[in-house]
Amino acid sequence: MIVSMKRFATKEDIASVCERIRDFGYKIHAIEGEERVVIGVVGVGDVTQCLESLEAMPSVENAVRISAPYKFVSKEFRKGRSVIRVNGNVEIGGDDMVVMAGPCSVESEKQIMESAHAVAKAGAKVLRGGAFKPRTSPYDFQGMAEEGLKLLRKAKQETGLAIVTEVMSDADVPLVAEYADLMQIGARNMQNFALLKSLGTCGRPVLLKRGLSSTIKELLMSAEYIVAHGNPNVILCERGIRTFETATRNTCDLVAVPVLNEMTHLPVVIDPSHATGKRSLVPALSRAAVAIGADGLIVEVHPCPEKAVSDGAQSLHLPEFEKMMNSLRGYVELWKESRMALAAAV
Amino acid sequence: MIVSMKRFATKEDIASVCERIRDFGYKIHAIEGEERVVIGVVGVGDVTQCLESLEAMPSVENAVRISAPYKFVSKEFRKGRSVIRVNGNVEIGGDDMVVMAGPCSVESEKQIMESAHAVAKAGAKVLRGGAFKPRTSPYDFQGMAEEGLKLLRKAKQETGLAIVTEVMSDADVPLVAEYADLMQIGARNMQNFALLKSLGTCGRPVLLKRGLSSTIKELLMSAEYIVAHGNPNVILCERGIRTFETATRNTCDLVAVPVLNEMTHLPVVIDPSHATGKRSLVPALSRAAVAIGADGLIVEVHPCPEKAVSDGAQSLHLPEFEKMMNSLRGYVELWKESRMALAAAV
Amino acid sequence: MIVSMKRFATKEDIASVCERIRDFGYKIHAIEGEERVVIGVVGVGDVTQCLESLEAMPSVENAVRISAPYKFVSKEFRKGRSVIRVNGNVEIGGDDMVVMAGPCSVESEKQIMESAHAVAKAGAKVLRGGAFKPRTSPYDFQGMAEEGLKLLRKAKQETGLAIVTEVMSDADVPLVAEYADLMQIGARNMQNFALLKSLGTCGRPVLLKRGLSSTIKELLMSAEYIVAHGNPNVILCERGIRTFETATRNTCDLVAVPVLNEMTHLPVVIDPSHATGKRSLVPALSRAAVAIGADGLIVEVHPCPEKAVSDGAQSLHLPEFEKMMNSLRGYVELWKESRMALAAAV
Amino acid sequence: MIVSMKRFATKEDIASVCERIRDFGYKIHAIEGEERVVIGVVGVGDVTQCLESLEAMPSVENAVRISAPYKFVSKEFRKGRSVIRVNGNVEIGGDDMVVMAGPCSVESEKQIMESAHAVAKAGAKVLRGGAFKPRTSPYDFQGMAEEGLKLLRKAKQETGLAIVTEVMSDADVPLVAEYADLMQIGARNMQNFALLKSLGTCGRPVLLKRGLSSTIKELLMSAEYIVAHGNPNVILCERGIRTFETATRNTCDLVAVPVLNEMTHLPVVIDPSHATGKRSLVPALSRAAVAIGADGLIVEVHPCPEKAVSDGAQSLHLPEFEKMMNSLRGYVELWKESRMALAAAV
Repeated sequence: MIVSMKRFATKEDIASVCERIRDFGYKIHAIEGEERVVIGVVGVGDVTQCLESLEAMPSVENAVRISAPYKFVSKEFRKGRSVIRVNGNVEIGGDDMVVMAGPCSVESEKQIMESAHAVAKAGAKVLRGGAFKPRTSPYDFQGMAEEGLKLLRKAKQETGLAIVTEVMSDADVPLVAEYADLMQIGARNMQNFALLKSLGTCGRPVLLKRGLSSTIKELLMSAEYIVAHGNPNVILCERGIRTFETATRNTCDLVAVPVLNEMTHLPVVIDPSHATGKRSLVPALSRAAVAIGADGLIVEVHPCPEKAVSDGAQSLHLPEFEKMMNSLRGYVELWKESRMALAAAV
Repeated sequence: MIVSMKRFATKEDIASVCERIRDFGYKIHAIEGEERVVIGVVGVGDVTQCLESLEAMPSVENAVRISAPYKFVSKEFRKGRSVIRVNGNVEIGGDDMVVMAGPCSVESEKQIMESAHAVAKAGAKVLRGGAFKPRTSPYDFQGMAEEGLKLLRKAKQETGLAIVTEVMSDADVPLVAEYADLMQIGARNMQNFALLKSLGTCGRPVLLKRGLSSTIKELLMSAEYIVAHGNPNVILCERGIRTFETATRNTCDLVAVPVLNEMTHLPVVIDPSHATGKRSLVPALSRAAVAIGADGLIVEVHPCPEKAVSDGAQSLHLPEFEKMMNSLRGYVELWKESRMALAAAV
Repeated sequence: MIVSMKRFATKEDIASVCERIRDFGYKIHAIEGEERVVIGVVGVGDVTQCLESLEAMPSVENAVRISAPYKFVSKEFRKGRSVIRVNGNVEIGGDDMVVMAGPCSVESEKQIMESAHAVAKAGAKVLRGGAFKPRTSPYDFQGMAEEGLKLLRKAKQETGLAIVTEVMSDADVPLVAEYADLMQIGARNMQNFALLKSLGTCGRPVLLKRGLSSTIKELLMSAEYIVAHGNPNVILCERGIRTFETATRNTCDLVAVPVLNEMTHLPVVIDPSHATGKRSLVPALSRAAVAIGADGLIVEVHPCPEKAVSDGAQSLHLPEFEKMMNSLRGYVELWKESRMALAAAV
Repeated sequence: MIVSMKRFATKEDIASVCERIRDFGYKIHAIEGEERVVIGVVGVGDVTQCLESLEAMPSVENAVRISAPYKFVSKEFRKGRSVIRVNGNVEIGGDDMVVMAGPCSVESEKQIMESAHAVAKAGAKVLRGGAFKPRTSPYDFQGMAEEGLKLLRKAKQETGLAIVTEVMSDADVPLVAEYADLMQIGARNMQNFALLKSLGTCGRPVLLKRGLSSTIKELLMSAEYIVAHGNPNVILCERGIRTFETATRNTCDLVAVPVLNEMTHLPVVIDPSHATGKRSLVPALSRAAVAIGADGLIVEVHPCPEKAVSDGAQSLHLPEFEKMMNSLRGYVELWKESRMALAAAV
C-alpha cells in the first residue's frame, strides 16, 4: 500500500495514520516528500479494510494497493498455464484450440440433435445450449429448464460432445451439475457472489463470463471466489463489454486475452457471437481470437436462425459454421506452432 | 415495430418478411421508399422474439421496437405516482421526501444502535444496514448474516425506524423478509432474474438499485419482473453508473430522476454515497437530488467511518449527517411546494 | 512519483531505475517491501517524461504520479474562488448565479433579436448564439460566420447583454474576439491544443466546455494550457459526457461541480441543454445545478424551436425559459445564502 | 425517416407534423398503428434539420433516420475497396498489408535515422514520426515542428520510406503537406471540422484516426467531410476507444475493421501501440489485426524506449519490431489468400 497524505497534514496527522496502519498489522516506511508526505506500507493483512479505513481519515489524500488482491488465480501462484479437463477427454488451456458451439436456447429435440450432429462433424468438441435463460424481459422465453437439460444429455449420448450450459441461481447448481460437464456463469451473474460460492463444491469446471461492465481485475476476483471456495477449474470468457458504440451489440475487448495471460494461469476463451451480436462478423472475430492466442471459442449456431427463440441475429447457420471452421484451419496451425514455441521456451 | 429492408431487397424478400411478421400475429403497413422499403408493424405479440427473428433474415437491414417493452411499470399503465408504504407508516413517492440512512454493514450492537438513534434524531425515517454484503473479494468481510438482521430488528424496536437491508440470493428471501421492511436489491444483482422472480411473493416492498452499467430501460424491465411476478411495490434507486471518469467512484446519472418520472409511476430515490464514493461530495449531491425531484435519499453514515469494515470513505460522521439534514431543509420546502403545485395541476 | 518494481527485480534492476530517476533530477526514497520493492520519488522536474521513461523499463511494474500535473488552475495555487469578469459588468464565480441563454445558432436578425430581448427580460445576463457551428455532417448548416457575429453585436447594443459565441479554429480567434465578450470552446475542441494556445493572448475570457469523453483532470489540463499561455480568465463548463445510456443525449456529470470546486479556483457552469438533449428535462436539471453550487447556467432557447436549424429538440420556447427562471428563484436564494456562509467561513 | 407520434396525439397534431415534413420536401406514408401513429417519410432533403425540427414538436415521440447520413464514403457509393496510393509507390487497401512504423516523436537526427533504417529493413513501407505533438499537458514536449519535418525528409531520402506525420491545425496544413506523404489526423482532432475542411485541398492522402469516444458512424462522417471538400484519399485508423477498463491505455475495438468493411470502401488500419499502451501486448494485437483483415498497421518503435520523450512504454525496441514482423509472416500469407479469394468472388 502507498498512502499519500494531504499537502498540509501535520505531524500529528501522520502519526495517527501510522498508528492505524500498525493496528492492521502492517509495517511502515515513510517518505518525506518536498510537497507532501507519502507512506509506504508492507506486510500481510486485510488490505481492503485497511485501505478503506485509511481513506476515511481526513488527512489522507489517497491510499492505493500495490500487490494484486487475488492469489490463487494469479500468475505468481502458478507460472505455467492451467489445463482444465471437461468431461474427461476435452482439455481447455492445453495443446489444442477448443471450439464450443450450439444454439442459444435448447428449443426442441429436433433442433438440439441437428445442431449437435452438425457441430460435432465440423470439429467442435463441446455442445452449448441454454436450458435456463436470463432474459431482460419477463415476457420473453425463459428456457425449457430440466427438460432442456435432458435433451442436452441425449445429444451428448448420441454425439460424444461434452455439454456446457448456464446456471442462474445457487438453488439450481446441484440440478445443473447432474447434466452439465461445464457450468456456465452468464455475464449478468459474474458478481452474483452467492452463486459463485455455491460453485466451489459443485464438482464441475466453470466457464465464467466477464460482466458487461466488469474490469479484468473484477473478472479475476470473481474467479478467485470460485477457487477460494474449493474449485480450481475455472475457464474465463470474454464476450464483449458495454461501451458507447452501438454498431455492434457489445465491444469485444480482444486484448483481454494477452492481458489475462500476463496475469493468470487460467484459460481464456472468446464468445464472438455475443461480442458482436451479428452473424456476419463472427468469422472475422473468430480468426482474430485464434490469432491473439485464445484457448477456445464459444459460438452460437442454429439450424434455422430466423426461427430461433433467442439470439437469431448472431447465430450462424449450420453450413456457415462448417465453412468458418474450415477457414480457421490455417490460423489454428499457426496457433499450435506458437504454443509449441512457448512450451519449448519454458 | 419498424422493419427496414436492405437496399436491394427483392419483392420475394419483402414477401417472406411479411409472412414471418404475420406468423407472429401482427399486421403490416408497407412503405415504398425511394431508396429502400420500410415496413411498419402493428398489433400485439411476442415482440422480442419477432424482432430477433426478423433481424436474423438476410434481407432485413434492421428492426426496431416502437412501443415500450414494459407494461405495468409504465406511465401509460398508471398516470399518477405510486406511493409505496414501508412498515405501515412511511410513504415513499408521496408528500414527503424520505431519508434512509445507516452504516454500510451492521458490525456490532453498539455501532448499529448509535447510528440508529442519531439518524432518527436527525430526521431519517428508515435505517439502512447490510447483513449480507456483496464484496468484490472473497477475502473481505461478508456480513454478519442473520445475527446482523437481529440487531437491525432491535434497532427498529428502540427507535421506530423502518429497516431496509440487502438480500443477495433467492434462497435468502424468506429469511430477510422476516426482518426487513424494505428488501434491497444491489446494483450487481439488478439482472439476477432468479432473485427478482422470488421477490414477487415476498410480501415486502423492494428497493431496486440500478446496475453499474444498466440502462434506464433495463432498470424498468427488472422492475417489471418483480411486478409481473406479483409485487407492485417497487422503489427505484439511482446510485451512479460506471463511466470512464475516475475522479468519483461512479458517475451519478441524476437526470435519470426526471427521465424516470416521464416513463414510470414508481418512486425514485438517490444514493449519494455510492454515486460519489467520497464523503465530502455527499451533501452537495443530496441537495441536487432534492432539487431535481427525487422521492428520497439513502445515505451511508457511521459512528466512526475510519474504523468501518466497508465504505468508510463515503460514510458521513453522525454529526455531519445531522448538519446535512439541516442544510437540506430549505430545499425540502421547495420540493414540497413543487409537489403540491404538481398535484393541483393534475 | 511512486515506482513499483516487478516482483523478481534484481538489485541491478533497482540500481538502474534509481539512476534514471536521478538523471531527471529527482531524489529517491526506497522502500524494501516483503513482496516487491517500491521506490518513492520526490523533487521537481519533467514528471510526464520521467514517468514514461520509467514505465518503459522492463523491471518496472508501474509508475504513478502523486502530485497534480496542473499548477495555475489548482486550488493550491489560489485558495479562494476566481471571479471572471465578462464585458466589464458581469461576474461569474462571484456573488451571483449567472444565466447565459440564447439560440444554438444565429439564424436571422429577427430570431436573435427576439431571443435577446426575451432572455434579457427573464433575467439572463449573457446572450449565447453560434456563428461558427461544429456539425457532425458536412451537409448540415455550418453557421452564418461573421454575418452572425454582427447580428450578435447588434443584439448586444440593443439589450446590453454580453455575448458568448464559439470559436472553432485558431485562425478565427482574432475575428471572434472582436465581437465576443466570452470565447466559447466546444466539447469537440477541448483538446485542440493549437486553438487553446491561441486563446492565451486573445484578450477575452474563455468558456471551456468539457469534452464528451474527457476526464475532469483533462479538462483542468486544457484550462492550464490557456492559463499557461497568458490568459487566466477561464470558466469551465460541464455539458454531459458520453456513456452507454441513450435515454438522454449525454449523461450530465453534475457531481463534477463540487469535485472541481475541491480541485480548482475557476468557476464552473452547467449546460443543461446539451447535457440532456431534451427540452422537458432542462428545468429540473437547472434546479439541480443551482442546488449543487454551479456558478452559472448556459441554456438554449429559440423563438420557434420547431423551426430551429439546429438543436430544436433541446431548446426551450421563450415563455418556457421565463417560467423556468421564475421557478429557479427560490433555489438561487438558497444558493446566495450558502455562498455568504462560505465567504464568512473563510 | 420514421416519425413516431405520442400516444395521445390528435388528428390535428398529425396533420401539422405532416405539413412540416412536406415543407422540407419529403413525401409521407402514414401508418395507423393500434397504439400510436407512425409516419414513414421518404424523399431527398436536409435530413438532419428535418429530424431536429420534428423532434422539437410536442406531439412527436421520436424521429429516426433510416438511410445513412454519409454518401461518398459509403459502400453504396462504391462497391469495391478503395486503394490509396501513398508517395506513388505504396498502396494501402490493395493486395498487400502495409506496415507503418517509427517513433512517437522525432527527437534527433540520430534517433530518426536509426529508426528509419531498422523499420525499412524489417519490412515497413512507411515511416511514422511526430513533429507536432498533441500533449495533454502544456509542460510536456510539444515536438520539433518544422525541424522535425526536415529530419523526416532526410530519412525518406536515405531509405525510400514514405512519411506519415501529424498535423494539428488548419494553419499548418500547407507546411506539413510539403513534407508528408500521408497527413495524420490525431484522435483528439477527429471532429476538428476546420482542420478536416482544410484537408480537402491539401493534395495528400489522409490517415484519419478515430476519436477516443467517437462512434464508427462519426468516424465515417468525419471522413465524409474530407471527401466532400475534395479529397477522396482517406485511410481510417482504429486506435482504441475510451471505456471503463484501465488495464490497457484504451480498448481496441478490433471488430470495427469488419464493421467498416461492410459500411465503407475506404481502407482501415490498426494502431496497436495506442490501442494497448503497453509494449508487451503489441505483437499479439498485431497478429489479430492481420487475421481480422486490417489493411495495415501503424506501430511505435524507438531505438531506446526508456529514453523516449513520449510513449516509451508502448514503443517496441527495434529488434522486437523485427521479431514481430517475422512472426506476422504466416498471418500475412493467410491474409493474402483471403484477399485473393475475395477478389475472385467479386
